[in-house]
Amino acid sequence: MRCEIIAVGTELLMGQIVNTNGAEMARDLAGLGIGVYYQTVVGDNEERLAEVFSLALKRADLIICSGGLGPTTDDITRETVARVLGLPLEQNEFWVKKLYEYFERVGRPLIQSNLRQAMLPRGGRLLPNDRGTAPGIFLEHEQRIFVLLPGPPGELLPMFRRQVIPLLRERLEQVEDLAVLQSKVLRVSGLGESLIAERIKDVLDKQDNPTIAPLARGGREVHLRLTARAGTAAEAARLLEDKAEEIRRILGDYIYGEDEEGLEHSVARLLWQKKMTIAVAESCSGGLLSHRLTDVPGSSLYMMAGLITYSNAAKADILGVDPQLIARRGAVSNGVALQMACGARRVGRAHIGIGITGIAGPDGGTAEKPVGLTYIALVDGGFDYCRDFHFWGSRQEIKERAAQTALHLLRLYLLGKL
Amino acid sequence: MRCEIIAVGTELLMGQIVNTNGAEMARDLAGLGIGVYYQTVVGDNEERLAEVFSLALKRADLIICSGGLGPTTDDITRETVARVLGLPLEQNEFWVKKLYEYFERVGRPLIQSNLRQAMLPRGGRLLPNDRGTAPGIFLEHEQRIFVLLPGPPGELLPMFRRQVIPLLRERLEQVEDLAVLQSKVLRVSGLGESLIAERIKDVLDKQDNPTIAPLARGGREVHLRLTARAGTAAEAARLLEDKAEEIRRILGDYIYGEDEEGLEHSVARLLWQKKMTIAVAESCSGGLLSHRLTDVPGSSLYMMAGLITYSNAAKADILGVDPQLIARRGAVSNGVALQMACGARRVGRAHIGIGITGIAGPDGGTAEKPVGLTYIALVDGGFDYCRDFHFWGSRQEIKERAAQTALHLLRLYLLGKL
Repeated sequence: MRCEIIAVGTELLMGQIVNTNGAEMARDLAGLGIGVYYQTVVGDNEERLAEVFSLALKRADLIICSGGLGPTTDDITRETVARVLGLPLEQNEFWVKKLYEYFERVGRPLIQSNLRQAMLPRGGRLLPNDRGTAPGIFLEHEQRIFVLLPGPPGELLPMFRRQVIPLLRERLEQVEDLAVLQSKVLRVSGLGESLIAERIKDVLDKQDNPTIAPLARGGREVHLRLTARAGTAAEAARLLEDKAEEIRRILGDYIYGEDEEGLEHSVARLLWQKKMTIAVAESCSGGLLSHRLTDVPGSSLYMMAGLITYSNAAKADILGVDPQLIARRGAVSNGVALQMACGARRVGRAHIGIGITGIAGPDGGTAEKPVGLTYIALVDGGFDYCRDFHFWGSRQEIKERAAQTALHLLRLYLLGKL
Repeated sequence: MRCEIIAVGTELLMGQIVNTNGAEMARDLAGLGIGVYYQTVVGDNEERLAEVFSLALKRADLIICSGGLGPTTDDITRETVARVLGLPLEQNEFWVKKLYEYFERVGRPLIQSNLRQAMLPRGGRLLPNDRGTAPGIFLEHEQRIFVLLPGPPGELLPMFRRQVIPLLRERLEQVEDLAVLQSKVLRVSGLGESLIAERIKDVLDKQDNPTIAPLARGGREVHLRLTARAGTAAEAARLLEDKAEEIRRILGDYIYGEDEEGLEHSVARLLWQKKMTIAVAESCSGGLLSHRLTDVPGSSLYMMAGLITYSNAAKADILGVDPQLIARRGAVSNGVALQMACGARRVGRAHIGIGITGIAGPDGGTAEKPVGLTYIALVDGGFDYCRDFHFWGSRQEIKERAAQTALHLLRLYLLGKL
């Protein structure tokens, strides 16, 4: 099945927003073995949308349009698609009722233009939207499948994953000779892309099925995407697992997780298993480590306290860092990082304390202590660790690398490998 | 001038990376008055790229291709474009020399395939790349302009901005009747999209030039993008300023900034002006408010401390919140938020204290205190404020809304309007 994705919206075309829907859907479609051959962005212009849609009819079996399903006059996808396909629009009573209920609930009058959102091309199936007033549409017509979805990612993605993907899977199961395309992502932290490529060179050289695509994620971690093609899902899964195991044997603990699991989730799982708690003291990372540690549902079981001590006074008052040490060695130093970690652990009454102090920039660096220099310490009462790191990039990137590295060290500690 | 952007790359098509180049370039082109009419993504496939490129020849005067200029066999843009245009490829001696210098410097042998990167379609102008081995190409041929650029944003964007934009501006200046397109963004916080539309209905109804496009940003704020078309940049700027002033008169302090300035930058400016300092105590927002406050370079001038107190013990130990109050009213309550704010202010020795306590979910909600219920308090010693909010969305969204709302309240306080 050849798929084309058409994103409709002048704001996308003009670059006011970035088209993330296309990438998200393409990834999910690959998982079903459906290849996306073209992605097109076109503005809210009826003539050009009709032209793009007509072209897609010639080169794709599955056409997905996102955007242009709103109630205003510049929302033209529904009408244009129906016109090009020669199908009349019919009112869907179920959605009319939903619209009346919605507008009554929010206490606003329903106006005529809102009812346009309840119009469907004849034969179309309504995909309910529980986060907005624009329903999606799934239409099979002359050997092709058409899917129309609202543009906001918060509405499109749940609708696509919960409603469209199952419908497509059903259709695919009716086809014989199904080639399944399945992916698995191995997430690597603590090794750069080129070092990884060197270590798994033999695996990369003989790759054919599964294929392996390394992707650096903002310099903070590397994702190895394995994609297998096979006759059945079980066979694809086996191919993926064999190849993943081969890579795991080489990279070992540098692989912290798979697929959608972030480093904070991997750390959270280890903390829960060991019933351990943590408290962190942050200077240059400014709260980002705490933010990531608390992004995990259930983090209240391990997260005792986060203490962002930007000023020297706060480091002394809150964490008990020795002011004379700060005066002698500077706030960005080995000893201060360790005292911050100890202070966090004591104040938060936690098993583990982490301290981060560094220079996030863009100003404040010196020849001896340049922007990016960061000390990260980890203590547990019987054990202590501290190391200097030289991060690079913008202020935001240095904050990100500091938080990511702290999570990486914490993971190694929890594995008994720090 | 009608522009089409073609992004070449299977990794884009499959959604392994998101196409940000297209959006960035489209924004810059709009600033020159060049409209992008289509954006297309196609894989590393010669036949399909040729087809897409041929179509673009029919509907655009300026065609920009990104990606596919690397040294490997799946990099096909250079050859395909030359073939479709019927132009021979010629070796550029300047770039051959650069390549030899580069490979000598990194201590690797230059192999034959690397020399492909020094080939240009006849008549093409080489755009040096100071961050990689793939140069860009600027070609004028039969009344059209073709621009080929390397795919990595770190190489493409500087090349586009420093080399391509000036060349395009030169070409445009030779054309009469130049229409300049300029944009300005008014950033609004604290009012939803529909409420804004209602209040500025009269302005929206009579919009023609400048046009006004409201865009909700993840439910946290709304951006009003004004775009003016005029004969000169000065005239466009005047049109934008007049319209902006009209909107400012209606929305007043709900407009917190313009263009790229985030809410934290607006708050930082006010804190600097008033020489005031701040300390924050966060529970459900988990460090995100501190993270945003410290994203601003120079934030050490106002940011005294951030205290993330997830557990009841930490709230009592670190902030001095009364344990009996927590037992009586619960950790998510008006009184606890106020005591957190007071505690942060005292411990951080700051002018202003902020306290946030709420239920970020997905678990932990009750009928009386549902997920999303959040109390935000602000105190300054003489003044205190506390209010409950009912945020919705995922755990991440609730954290974002809590941090955004706290910044919004802080801004109103600093303006004397809370």
